[in-house]
Amino acid sequence: LHLIKKKETVLNPLIQSLSDVADSVKTCSICGNLDNTDPCRICSDPTRQAPIICVVQDVADVWALERSKTFKGVYHILGGTLSALDGIGPEDLRIDRLVKRVQEVQAQEVILATSATVEGQTTAHYIADCLADLDVQVTGLAHGIPVGGELDYLDDGTLNAALSARKSIGDDL
Amino acid sequence: LHLIKKKETVLNPLIQSLSDVADSVKTCSICGNLDNTDPCRICSDPTRQAPIICVVQDVADVWALERSKTFKGVYHILGGTLSALDGIGPEDLRIDRLVKRVQEVQAQEVILATSATVEGQTTAHYIADCLADLDVQVTGLAHGIPVGGELDYLDDGTLNAALSARKSIGDDL
Repeated sequence: LHLIKKKETVLNPLIQSLSDVADSVKTCSICGNLDNTDPCRICSDPTRQAPIICVVQDVADVWALERSKTFKGVYHILGGTLSALDGIGPEDLRIDRLVKRVQEVQAQEVILATSATVEGQTTAHYIADCLADLDVQVTGLAHGIPVGGELDYLDDGTLNAALSARKSIGDDL
Repeated sequence: LHLIKKKETVLNPLIQSLSDVADSVKTCSICGNLDNTDPCRICSDPTRQAPIICVVQDVADVWALERSKTFKGVYHILGGTLSALDGIGPEDLRIDRLVKRVQEVQAQEVILATSATVEGQTTAHYIADCLADLDVQVTGLAHGIPVGGELDYLDDGTLNAALSARKSIGDDL
């Protein structure tokens, strides 16, 4: 109602903005990221390390990793996770293109940064299998206690993972 | 009001239960755990590995780790964390006793399972320093993505930790 009432000042600019977005946003042909250029700003940035490819599920994950400002490589967006329930198979994700890309750019490392959910880990396993024959190091994100996490509030699975992956202190102290 | 109204059936049994608890609960002289025996059931259990000591802040953390059923060693409860703001120094925690215990039982490994908060990590650093001269391996819990965690919802610090501590897949696949 608010939109209709203020048709001139609110609704029309909104329509204009939305159609601008619809016109300008493209999917990057290399990584699948959304940007107004193709290839996207990350893929075309010469300061980023192209041989290190971080595989994520979604564009939102790229934004999350970019916010953290740690990662200096490039991304590959799958567009989802394998899910038998939802009928999403390997052919629905950009896995073929990842394998081709790894061969083409002679990638050194593929970081499987899928979520720590059942679907995410299944997808990571599947991709690791696909890449097993190629000469590339396949790594996964560390699982454990999140920053600020108090033991008391954590689930059993996380405590399990954190305990079994414990590491010597002194390396990072 | 409910308690007073049902004095005979609710309030009196409650008073009785609370005083039973107050009478029977003891602090374990070895680890600082609360139990109705001293030493506590964990310290006196011969099936647990006494040379592996897990250092936690609080009894609640012992319960959390026991729920996860991963850890087969024994605990040492600090009773808090170092905190300059709250005026809690090393002498207020059970750190002296930990150092003495490590020497007495010839511990193989001390796992510093303090929270991933600033205070928790400060305390872990301090204890690692205290134990540096002893012949014991000091480890910390792994930091990273919690089980079920989606990248999109995680904070920068956790993503940072998970990325920098990434590890080769194939070891655990």
